[in-house]
This record gives sequence, C-alpha cells and structure tokens, in this order.
Amino acid sequence: MRLIAAALTSLSLLGASLAHANQAQSTPSATSIDISRVSPALEKYAINTIQEGLWKRPGLTLRDRSIVTVATLIARNQADEMPRHIALALDNGVKPAEISEIITHLAFYSGWGNAMSAVAAGQDVFTQRGIGADQLPAASPQLLPLNEAAEAQRATGVQQNFGQVSPGVVQYTTDLLFKDLWLRPDLIPRDRSLVTVSALIASGQVAQIPYHLNRAMDNGLTKEQASEVLTHIAFYAGWPNVFSALPVAKGVFEGRR
Amino acid sequence: MRLIAAALTSLSLLGASLAHANQAQSTPSATSIDISRVSPALEKYAINTIQEGLWKRPGLTLRDRSIVTVATLIARNQADEMPRHIALALDNGVKPAEISEIITHLAFYSGWGNAMSAVAAGQDVFTQRGIGADQLPAASPQLLPLNEAAEAQRATGVQQNFGQVSPGVVQYTTDLLFKDLWLRPDLIPRDRSLVTVSALIASGQVAQIPYHLNRAMDNGLTKEQASEVLTHIAFYAGWPNVFSALPVAKGVFEGRR
Amino acid sequence: MRLIAAALTSLSLLGASLAHANQAQSTPSATSIDISRVSPALEKYAINTIQEGLWKRPGLTLRDRSIVTVATLIARNQADEMPRHIALALDNGVKPAEISEIITHLAFYSGWGNAMSAVAAGQDVFTQRGIGADQLPAASPQLLPLNEAAEAQRATGVQQNFGQVSPGVVQYTTDLLFKDLWLRPDLIPRDRSLVTVSALIASGQVAQIPYHLNRAMDNGLTKEQASEVLTHIAFYAGWPNVFSALPVAKGVFEGRR
Repeated sequence: MRLIAAALTSLSLLGASLAHANQAQSTPSATSIDISRVSPALEKYAINTIQEGLWKRPGLTLRDRSIVTVATLIARNQADEMPRHIALALDNGVKPAEISEIITHLAFYSGWGNAMSAVAAGQDVFTQRGIGADQLPAASPQLLPLNEAAEAQRATGVQQNFGQVSPGVVQYTTDLLFKDLWLRPDLIPRDRSLVTVSALIASGQVAQIPYHLNRAMDNGLTKEQASEVLTHIAFYAGWPNVFSALPVAKGVFEGRR
Repeated sequence: MRLIAAALTSLSLLGASLAHANQAQSTPSATSIDISRVSPALEKYAINTIQEGLWKRPGLTLRDRSIVTVATLIARNQADEMPRHIALALDNGVKPAEISEIITHLAFYSGWGNAMSAVAAGQDVFTQRGIGADQLPAASPQLLPLNEAAEAQRATGVQQNFGQVSPGVVQYTTDLLFKDLWLRPDLIPRDRSLVTVSALIASGQVAQIPYHLNRAMDNGLTKEQASEVLTHIAFYAGWPNVFSALPVAKGVFEGRR
Repeated sequence: MRLIAAALTSLSLLGASLAHANQAQSTPSATSIDISRVSPALEKYAINTIQEGLWKRPGLTLRDRSIVTVATLIARNQADEMPRHIALALDNGVKPAEISEIITHLAFYSGWGNAMSAVAAGQDVFTQRGIGADQLPAASPQLLPLNEAAEAQRATGVQQNFGQVSPGVVQYTTDLLFKDLWLRPDLIPRDRSLVTVSALIASGQVAQIPYHLNRAMDNGLTKEQASEVLTHIAFYAGWPNVFSALPVAKGVFEGRR
C-alpha cells in the first residue's frame, strides 16, 4: 500500500495519472524524487488536493490548466519542472506549435534567459516524442490582422507617457510586440493573453496586470476562467503572488461591469 | 596561510566552522567553489562579516538564523545553497520534522516547484544522516486547536474582499491553509510565522508582510527578533528586498504600540 | 543555408559573432542548445532583433551592454546564461577585476546565493582564459575618497526613517555598503551604479530605483544611457519589469530638470 502510494506520487506519475484519467496519451518524463521521504504531508497534498482536487475543478479545462502551469513555470524559470509539464500539456491537447509560441511569447514577457531554459526543456520533450520542424510555426508566418483602432489607442497612450523616457522601449513595444509577436497565428489571442496574465501573476508583476487582464477578457477569457486561473496559480506560484493580484483583478472585474 | 584561508572559506567549511564554533555536529556537505579565485573580497566578507559577524550577533539564536536562511533559500529557489544550509540547520537544532514542515509550508507560500527543489535537497541531507520516515511528521497528524475568533475574523475579511473575485482561492485559503497547514503540530506557530515572514521579505512580497508580521508577533516573535530578521535577510536576499520591507515593518511596529 | 543559420544562432556563437563584429577576441564557451528545434521564430529574433539590432544601437557601448547584461543575469540568478555573457563581457573590454567587483557588488544588492552562482560561472571562464589572482582586486584595497557631505545626508535620512526599525540594517548599510563596498576602486562609481540600477530593474525592485537612478546620474550616467539601459533590459528581464520601471524613471528624469 505504502509502495503503491509512493509510486503514485512520484512526480512523474502524478502527471501521468492526471492525464490518463482524462484521455489517452504517452507518459511524461520520469523524475526520481520521492516526496514522502521528506514530507509525507506534501505527498498527501499532491494526490488529494492537487491531483484529485485542483486539476479536476470545473472552472478551467485541462488544456487551459496546462497552459497556465507551463507559463507559470517559464515565468519563474523553474527548469526542473518544465519537461514534465510540457509533456503533460501535449497530453492535454496543447499542440507542439502552441508550446513553441508560448516559449517565444515569454522570451519577451519573462525574459530571454527564461525562454532559453524552456527551449532546452522543450527540445528534450520534442525529441522524445519525435516532434520535428514540420510541426513548428514558421519563423515569419502570415500574421493575424491588426485591430488598428485598439493598437493606435495603446500606442498613443504609451508614446505620450513614456516616449521621452525610453524611445527604444516604446518603439520595440509597438513594432516587435504588438505588430508582430501578438499577431503570430499559431497561438490564438485568447491563449496568448492567458499565457501573459499567468506569467504576470506568477512573477508578481502586479502593475502590469490591469492592462493585460482587460486585454485577456477582450480576447475571450471569461471572469470565471480568470478567477480560476488565480486559484490554479496559487499552488504553482504560491499564495502571496495570488493575494497581491486579487485586489488588482477585483478592480479590473469591477471596471468592466 | 593562503591555502588555509581558501580552505576555511570554501562554502562547505563556512557552514561547518560556523556550526562547530557553537556546538557539536557533523559536517555539512562540501562544495567545490573557491570564492577567492574570483573575488578575494567576497572571501573576506564571508569570513569577517558573515561568519564572524552576522551569525554571532545577539538578536537571533543560531537556530532562528538557520530557519530564516533556509526559508529565504526556498523562497528564492536557490537549490545550490539548500543542502548546505539544511545540514547546518540540523546542526543548529532544527529537527528533521521541522525541516519537513518548513518545506511543506513553503510549498503553499513560495510555490510547489520551490518545495520540490527543497525536497530534493532535503532528501540528500536526510539520506546522508540516516534520517528515516520515523523522524518525519505524519501526513495527517492531530492538529493544533484553532483560534476560532481570530480565524472567523480573518475569513470574513477575505470573503468580503475577494469572495466574488476568486471563490476558489478564498475557499482553499480557509480549508487548506488556516484550518489545516497552519495547525500542523510539528512546527510551532511562532516558527511557522518566522518562515512565512522570511519568505515574504526574501521574495519581495511587500504587500503581504503587514498581515503576516502582525501574526508573527501575535505568535511570539518579538520586535527585536523581527528587526534582526531583516538584518539577516539583507545578506541572503539582497539589500533592496530588505529596504522595500523596512517601511512596511515600520508601519506594523508603530501600529502595535 | 539552414545549417549555417542554425550554427550562427547557437547561443555560443551569437555571443561570439556579436563580439567578433566589433573587436578581436577569443570565443565564448559553447552551449548545445539549438533554438530552431523548438522555435524558429526565436532564432530569427536572436539574429535579426537582438544580435543585429539591439546590440548595435548607438545609445550604449558594447562594454556597457555587457555590464548591464551580466548584472541582469546575476540579479535574476540565471546561471546557465552567465558563462557565455561573462566571456562576452571580457571580449567587450570589461576587465577581470571589474567582473570580480560586479559579482562582489551584487552579493549585497542581489543576495549572497546569486553571487555564488556567478562565482561558479566566473571561475570557469577565468580558468579557461588563464586569468589568475594577479588580475583580481585585493580583498582590502585602498578605498576611493568618501563624499562626506552626500554620505552624511544619506545616512541621516536612513537613520531617521529606519534606525528604530532595524538598527542592524542601518549600521551595515553605512559601514559595509557606503563606506566600504561603494568605495572599492576597481569598478568606478558610474559603472557600479550602472550595475546597481540594472539589477534593480531586472529584479522588479521598483521602490529602490529612484535613489539609485539619481545616484547613477550623479555618478555620470546620462539620461540617454539610462533610457537605453531600459531598452536593453527589456529583452533580458522581460517587458513587464521594464514597464514597471518606466514611470519611476520618468519621475527621476523630471525631478532632475
């Protein structure tokens, strides 16, 4: 019984059993950590609270939970946990091209080094699963159409506020982020926003949440989903990051009524 | 002389000599870094300022300093430094069950991935020292009694503020954290608070300090100890985190007079 | 063509070709990551946007960009990226003694563990290049003269604000940082300020930016350089950290007019 419990909760199997409970898939990469040898309590929480509780709550699909988790890990540069959760994300229906875009997106929203850790993790998983270049987004694809009015409003605001402070930042923000990165077609805007908001909450970037949470909801993320994103991230980025985000999310929700 | 200095300041021996100066113990795990080959100044600061200075200041016991240091490293996910300081904490009188509870506690206050890094580090140290399952807390022990009045007040405040924003977070905060995690008996509330406050300061979670520093002082942490926690963390999490915490601590201290 | 592109953008060569374009030097250490196997887009951005764009902008010298990048990586504890960028910094004219001082400085501004990661990375690069103890700063050199008036003003302000909150922090800040670390001669105050400001922006320490950005400009950093530091760090620490710093930088710039 003990041995079975230990086996079930080895980190790799947590991911595998989670996914197996919901759909057919291959097995995430294994790790050798046995939580119970340091904390039998954490083993209990891993199974009862996270595996059988959090991930089965109705507020978000497994695919969304995987996107939120992968974005959280990249934002926090937690390389050890990445391969397992990239593999689980693939099992949960996130396409290789979408994994690639999540990493590309966070190169700019979490920093180049974070993306490089994710590239290393992604490379391992893609190799294991025989995912080749034909499944990856083109370097320069046909971009999605730009919402000219919304972008003009955003660009004008930023230019007025910060055009004299750092013209380089302002220029790259327009040309590189909003007229290029955000228009790449292999991650839909709603999911790109979900990645961005998750990364902001997970790394304590409270001041940047209002713009991006509003944008996420404009892009189709519902209030109920955003609420559950906060619940999910509490476990992966810690309660304090989420409690600092709560008043900001409250302000955004109230401002949209 | 030079060789002796280098040996003394290799990171492992810093820990060992620190602890040896105070009580009998076994030797922390070794590392191969010789600071002086990159910075003779850092080697000097390691010995004169930290080893012979900071750790011998009267404001906190060696046991408290080890708890603060381990919590700081877990909160910042600094895996390389963890084994040495977990070993030193054991030397300084922190029990294996307490190490286990610190890691379990920070799974929720610093994030699951941080706890997994600490589990890996703890597993190495526990194996080296022959610490087995019999010295670890039960997964589901008899919990400490709940302060019903204080918890009702906390829960009501959070529900009123955030019940509509993220009911999931609010529910888990009550059921999982305050009616379960905080009542686990193998880390007394004062030490659990010390771990929490240290993690918040060390990771720049300024907005969450007032509630938890007040709670820590309600749980028995003195103003003088809290003051010295700030001093200690300055070295392990950097001056800016501590300078951002100072005005918040000031507000808490003044509010309790 | 494809193979050449892949080779060019392997992380090591990015650094190498960057530096080769500007001066003679040896080759940074290699890494085995091929970005294109996970994200052809990131490979494109690495070459077109960062290598041929950002690093060739006129606002900062290559030496300054290397200082900013190394400080950013240490502040964020991104050990994997450090050896390559420490090597590139040497190629770009940062002296070994200056690398040593940057690491020593950030032990106190980013935390001891961050400095230990940088010591490990620096040790590898120094060994590869045959850089020995004769090229490192003395542990206790002749210090630069102190600006007594400015220091008295700073110390008085901090003492009045926080002398009762944490006398230990206040004392160490004076004796260890401003009357010792900041006066070490092997990194000029302007560069020491550049390191400090970069680390603060890169780790989201917004509240500490006003004092240190003003100090940096007192030490000779121009508004145009500070503006370009923000642009450079956007890529290495992510857009959100820079967007949170922009209003603070704006306040500092306006306050100095």
